[in-house]
Amino acid sequence: MPIRKRFTRGHYKLAGVSFTVTATDGRARRGELRLPHGTVQTPAFMPVGTRAAIKALTFDQVDVLNPDIILGNTYHLHLRPGDDLIARAGGLHKFMGWAKPVLTDSGGYQVFSLAGRRTITEEGAAFRSHIDGRAHLLTPESVVDIQARLGSDIAMIFDECAPWPAERADVEAAMERTLRWARRGRDRFQALQRGDAPEVPRATPGQRQFGIIQGGTHRDLRDRSVAGTLDIGFDAYAIGGLSVGEPVDVMYDVVEHTAAQLPADLPRYLMGTGMPDDLVESVARGIDMFDCVLPTRNARNGQLLTRHGVIAIKNARYAEDFGPPDPDCTCSTCQRHSRAYLRHLYMVGEMTAASLNTVHNLHFYLDTMESIRKAIEFGTFEEFRQAFHRTFTRQHVP
Amino acid sequence: MPIRKRFTRGHYKLAGVSFTVTATDGRARRGELRLPHGTVQTPAFMPVGTRAAIKALTFDQVDVLNPDIILGNTYHLHLRPGDDLIARAGGLHKFMGWAKPVLTDSGGYQVFSLAGRRTITEEGAAFRSHIDGRAHLLTPESVVDIQARLGSDIAMIFDECAPWPAERADVEAAMERTLRWARRGRDRFQALQRGDAPEVPRATPGQRQFGIIQGGTHRDLRDRSVAGTLDIGFDAYAIGGLSVGEPVDVMYDVVEHTAAQLPADLPRYLMGTGMPDDLVESVARGIDMFDCVLPTRNARNGQLLTRHGVIAIKNARYAEDFGPPDPDCTCSTCQRHSRAYLRHLYMVGEMTAASLNTVHNLHFYLDTMESIRKAIEFGTFEEFRQAFHRTFTRQHVP
Repeated sequence: MPIRKRFTRGHYKLAGVSFTVTATDGRARRGELRLPHGTVQTPAFMPVGTRAAIKALTFDQVDVLNPDIILGNTYHLHLRPGDDLIARAGGLHKFMGWAKPVLTDSGGYQVFSLAGRRTITEEGAAFRSHIDGRAHLLTPESVVDIQARLGSDIAMIFDECAPWPAERADVEAAMERTLRWARRGRDRFQALQRGDAPEVPRATPGQRQFGIIQGGTHRDLRDRSVAGTLDIGFDAYAIGGLSVGEPVDVMYDVVEHTAAQLPADLPRYLMGTGMPDDLVESVARGIDMFDCVLPTRNARNGQLLTRHGVIAIKNARYAEDFGPPDPDCTCSTCQRHSRAYLRHLYMVGEMTAASLNTVHNLHFYLDTMESIRKAIEFGTFEEFRQAFHRTFTRQHVP
Repeated sequence: MPIRKRFTRGHYKLAGVSFTVTATDGRARRGELRLPHGTVQTPAFMPVGTRAAIKALTFDQVDVLNPDIILGNTYHLHLRPGDDLIARAGGLHKFMGWAKPVLTDSGGYQVFSLAGRRTITEEGAAFRSHIDGRAHLLTPESVVDIQARLGSDIAMIFDECAPWPAERADVEAAMERTLRWARRGRDRFQALQRGDAPEVPRATPGQRQFGIIQGGTHRDLRDRSVAGTLDIGFDAYAIGGLSVGEPVDVMYDVVEHTAAQLPADLPRYLMGTGMPDDLVESVARGIDMFDCVLPTRNARNGQLLTRHGVIAIKNARYAEDFGPPDPDCTCSTCQRHSRAYLRHLYMVGEMTAASLNTVHNLHFYLDTMESIRKAIEFGTFEEFRQAFHRTFTRQHVP
């Protein structure tokens, strides 16, 4: 374990809140979030384990990568294997063999993506399972109950995420409905906390609930969403509805505008973002937590992300490139294997290719977050940010 | 590293031969095979890494399982990525990042399985690639050259494996051709050793070449194959053409009959076998080395092999079975995960299922071999064998 230096500059601890900002640098914050299953060093990236597994990895491999927290998905786990079954297993942590913190997404984004197979009403979202066609109804309350059974450390509210592009009226309606659902979800969460629904097992009694700000790319809708969500009052707040197709500068603008209105003493979570440079830019705007399928999904598609750009491993130029995938990387894939070997595995369709690429991409994301945290501690975040942009590109490596 | 006790009972070291039998128990032998990339403790099971990867595992995971030697396949690697490319990488070991011994199968079995797409002549086997339709010709000589470029520790000769069932005349013809090809393959191998073909890079100068006994289930054909192959003279000998569909008692009979005629001072390798009880029974008949795709392939099909039978993990009875897959097993899968979790991963199609199941099955095979080796050292192999059969079944676990 590396010895982590603690700086007092900008340090303030808020009584009764389990989030401590230990350093700031501009709007960037260095913090610690204490959760029932452990402490999360922020800014943090959360690898996505939708169906109780990080795709292509075993948890022994995840242990080596050592994220402080991972994601699970309420929608997927409700369908298979079922939250009742997971509750009987003792909760999601025990079920999947992962003892550190877990955040569960509410499934709102997934349900709304089921175009043509779902019906949204004020009550909730009715849909047919893509597996067996059975009818399901997710409501703001049932999603709270499901997550109580899963026993995640952080439960997200059930929100309605408008598509992009969308009419302002549709974005506004989704934002308003999210507010009404947030109130219902918070009420249900607090009822479970009070013990008013003893029939719902709570696998993690100290579970926290995060609200979600919607409003698309409209500043005034975001403002109303922030005001309404803060008025309800959650353990912390997330920004949803971004990274859905809008231009990156628009996203950064909404992040900056919205994050500035969220409580300084609580973690801020930007949902579903993004590319490595998005993480750096969002930290610069005050974001503390991230998740994204990009590093794991792109790994399976043969895309390796590095400080110097993207390596599309199937490219013929790598066929006899016997150097490491990323010469600057200390991950086990880059320490042991060449671009030529990774290309071979990808071209012949060995699933080992997905594992090795996933190890690299997640290591790169987690290592970038570690660099961000150190830079904030040392007060050199702006230098780090500029240095990062000097080498990183979304294009292929030169 | 466990301290391995060395027993002198039955120990004899043969000068000039890199195989030492350190103990015997009945016909079972405990030995050490010294190869250019390390020493193999025998009896040994060799996990199959056909295309320069053990399917569903990274080599970091293979390291934990710690086999002494793994297999690669000449046919597959010749097609992709090509033995020339692998030679330029410095050989197969460097190409795939595995420093310990490797045996390369000759590809004979694979080519003869290409029914309808190959033509066998005295010259060799002409076939069209299943990848791009390009014409290829493998000959007894070219297979030696390919394996020299790959740089495996052990190179198998190019043999003709008759199908089962087959007419005796066809089995005899395949056996006779294998003998003629063996002579040509040995001549070519020795020519490379003498430096007569400097245009062929030899990635592992100390490479050994094993001959292969054919003859199907006919004792007299096996006898002629043994005599002819020994007459040519190889570094060691393998028994091919079994585990192709014949009844198990017939296979055991052929193994016993054939192994008894092979030199006592050289390792004996039974190709492509088999189920765990096959390994025990073949060791009892004097076999030292095994390979089989069964543990890795069955893992991907959701079959977990244990001392108490087979677990078909998709079975609904495991849906809420929160106990370990095999309570007696010390593998990382059984230490960390439940049958219910493995079933969930398998049912939703997560590739992590294949990885976790493969870890278990290979651990079980390698652990069984370790138990076999210890039993031979202690002179308790017969007790081990009986105890093994008391619990092991090819049926589902009770």
